[in-house]
Amino acid sequence: MRMSHTFTKTLRNAPKDETAKNGAYLTRAGYVHKEMAGVYDYLPLGLRVIEKIKGIVREELNAIGCEEVLMSALQNPEPWEKTGRFSDQEVDIWFKTELSAGGELGLAPTHEEPMVNMLKSYISSYKDLPLYVYQFQTKFRNELRAKSGILRGREFLMKDLYSFHTSEEDLDKFYAEVEKAYARIYERVGLGDDTYETFASGGIFSKYSHEYQTLLPVGEDTIYHNKDYSVVLNKEVLNDETLADLGVKREDLLEETAAEVGNIFKLKFKYSEPLGLKFSDENNEQKTVYMGCYGIGISRVMGVIAEKFADDKGLVWPEAVAPFKYHLVAIGDSGTKKAEEIYALHSDEILFDDRGNVRPGEKFADAELIGLPYRIVISDKTLAEDSAEITVRATGESRLVALDKIFNN
Amino acid sequence: MRMSHTFTKTLRNAPKDETAKNGAYLTRAGYVHKEMAGVYDYLPLGLRVIEKIKGIVREELNAIGCEEVLMSALQNPEPWEKTGRFSDQEVDIWFKTELSAGGELGLAPTHEEPMVNMLKSYISSYKDLPLYVYQFQTKFRNELRAKSGILRGREFLMKDLYSFHTSEEDLDKFYAEVEKAYARIYERVGLGDDTYETFASGGIFSKYSHEYQTLLPVGEDTIYHNKDYSVVLNKEVLNDETLADLGVKREDLLEETAAEVGNIFKLKFKYSEPLGLKFSDENNEQKTVYMGCYGIGISRVMGVIAEKFADDKGLVWPEAVAPFKYHLVAIGDSGTKKAEEIYALHSDEILFDDRGNVRPGEKFADAELIGLPYRIVISDKTLAEDSAEITVRATGESRLVALDKIFNN
Repeated sequence: MRMSHTFTKTLRNAPKDETAKNGAYLTRAGYVHKEMAGVYDYLPLGLRVIEKIKGIVREELNAIGCEEVLMSALQNPEPWEKTGRFSDQEVDIWFKTELSAGGELGLAPTHEEPMVNMLKSYISSYKDLPLYVYQFQTKFRNELRAKSGILRGREFLMKDLYSFHTSEEDLDKFYAEVEKAYARIYERVGLGDDTYETFASGGIFSKYSHEYQTLLPVGEDTIYHNKDYSVVLNKEVLNDETLADLGVKREDLLEETAAEVGNIFKLKFKYSEPLGLKFSDENNEQKTVYMGCYGIGISRVMGVIAEKFADDKGLVWPEAVAPFKYHLVAIGDSGTKKAEEIYALHSDEILFDDRGNVRPGEKFADAELIGLPYRIVISDKTLAEDSAEITVRATGESRLVALDKIFNN
Repeated sequence: MRMSHTFTKTLRNAPKDETAKNGAYLTRAGYVHKEMAGVYDYLPLGLRVIEKIKGIVREELNAIGCEEVLMSALQNPEPWEKTGRFSDQEVDIWFKTELSAGGELGLAPTHEEPMVNMLKSYISSYKDLPLYVYQFQTKFRNELRAKSGILRGREFLMKDLYSFHTSEEDLDKFYAEVEKAYARIYERVGLGDDTYETFASGGIFSKYSHEYQTLLPVGEDTIYHNKDYSVVLNKEVLNDETLADLGVKREDLLEETAAEVGNIFKLKFKYSEPLGLKFSDENNEQKTVYMGCYGIGISRVMGVIAEKFADDKGLVWPEAVAPFKYHLVAIGDSGTKKAEEIYALHSDEILFDDRGNVRPGEKFADAELIGLPYRIVISDKTLAEDSAEITVRATGESRLVALDKIFNN
């Protein structure tokens, strides 16, 4: 992508109402544009990050046999009324609207009910199970406050996976597979080192659920962990019973702040029972389907990465989710000529600062703000040595690399 | 994709309330699931068609320098109030909702206002222009009736492109480029032969806009054309003035029914003026930005293709938008063994009917209903000749092809 042809520009200052670091840097660097608190547009660079994260999640879920769909945002109240969740008393973050033709609709804050309801058309026998169905879909949540940039959105992108089973054993087996897939996902997006599976509160059918929490000073959650992080739990379940269940003592636990980047939940019959999702078993008896659900906030993951790795110069993207791997900066006429040649060969991986009317210092500052993993500078000075200067954004280390070896790392 | 691992099943009958052919077949073949009139879920096969169409549109738009973004569905009334379009009297298909924190919001039926408003942050000088920004985004339209399957949605996927220029000449030049890109898009998705650019009503600043209309008996539009289709116009502009402008006589025009699959519009100052989108020109004078907008209903294009090419056995997808190119049907044990080998090598392009408990006749009927371009049958009979039987869905022609030459077409 050529910066001379990109409509976004870096901004010296973030909007006054953007107090979160992720929101401020993402706005200044041209990744997002704020429509209102908790509602953002994704600009070309930001959309590329979202698509990179989605790509990693999709690969890992497809690898364990999940099938992708796209469900509607508009919600018929009917299935939600069966579980009691259409009520604003029960779920206090609904956006509701009215159909011209008559009747109230909701905007999906999550999709358990329509998913279960839809699958009644396809599940009838034990032969149809297990099933794992997911989507990347916008969720709408009418939050009273939303001041954390893209960490907490009123409109945000989520990956939600739902699994359907004939037995608790089969649910447990798949749940364990998702745990492994999630570990790979957080590792691949660059959050592996500081993301922990934590015990969180369960529901009617399960004592605990699990959250994935990334250590983050501005996170909204408080977690407790032992020294080696082999036991991590959410504040909401910090009580004698949990401590006994997990075999840890309160005095051995340390407190830390974290942001939730995913959750997984054994729902069992919570939704399948009220909605009547049944299957006939080998003996032709009608049984209720076991369910699990598994979420990852895609835009929140982007926000956590932005927030976590940014330094005082700007964003620092892990390679796998960076919108481009290289930030190519051309200086001077011969630098520009050579940079054009290089760009022509690797344009998919390069954000090319080909702007003619911008001083080198400004280009460098923009490169740091935008935060791609490697900055490549080509100037008279580097060309004198038949080289380019490559700077690693995360460490600031620079070295001269022969022109024909730039893309070897 | 293996049919044995796919949650959707073909249905013998469409739901009673699904009167449109596209909706009935897409539902029966497992491409979509209806949530309510005009609101559909896209199932694995349907989502693949959507992504194929998006891929083609994206390629053609990127090739003419367009930049992709993703704007929000939730709409702050402010910019819409400046153009008068937040009023339900002015735009009668709004879905409106309330923010918990106070204030009315809308769900975007289109995105001119937020796009113009956003670009005020990035456009200040003639040097920032021209710009071409597009997205694939869900639109919400509170239609009183929606009985045409996915042809007319209350929630549907649209590609909307907006262009920004310093002069009318520059707008005209880009408009002509979009016309060429649209011709390539409709050609590539398989609608080229029957899709025409038609004169339609303009607005404050343009006498005419253009629609792209695909001939379709159940279409909602009426178009008029001369014998060789060199002049095509929409019923709404069939009047003496238009006839004079286009140099045709009423008696030379034939009437036909069509479905709108796209539209392009020279907006000029319609939105940039009330929203104050200005640039400073070479003489540092403030001027208003010229605009164009260019839509393609992605889900509607899918519906038109489904509706147009379906025959009495089911869907018939053009190759470029088919969810898979090949429908591989294994019959008998040795057929299954060989089919497994073939599937392993080309799984990305194949829907594999590997179901063991389904009769060949049922597999063939499902293949016709699902409508992939080529059906490959491998059975004892074909293996005796070291071949597979390939049947072209569109023509029904079958031939034996040597196993090592199956993928040569």
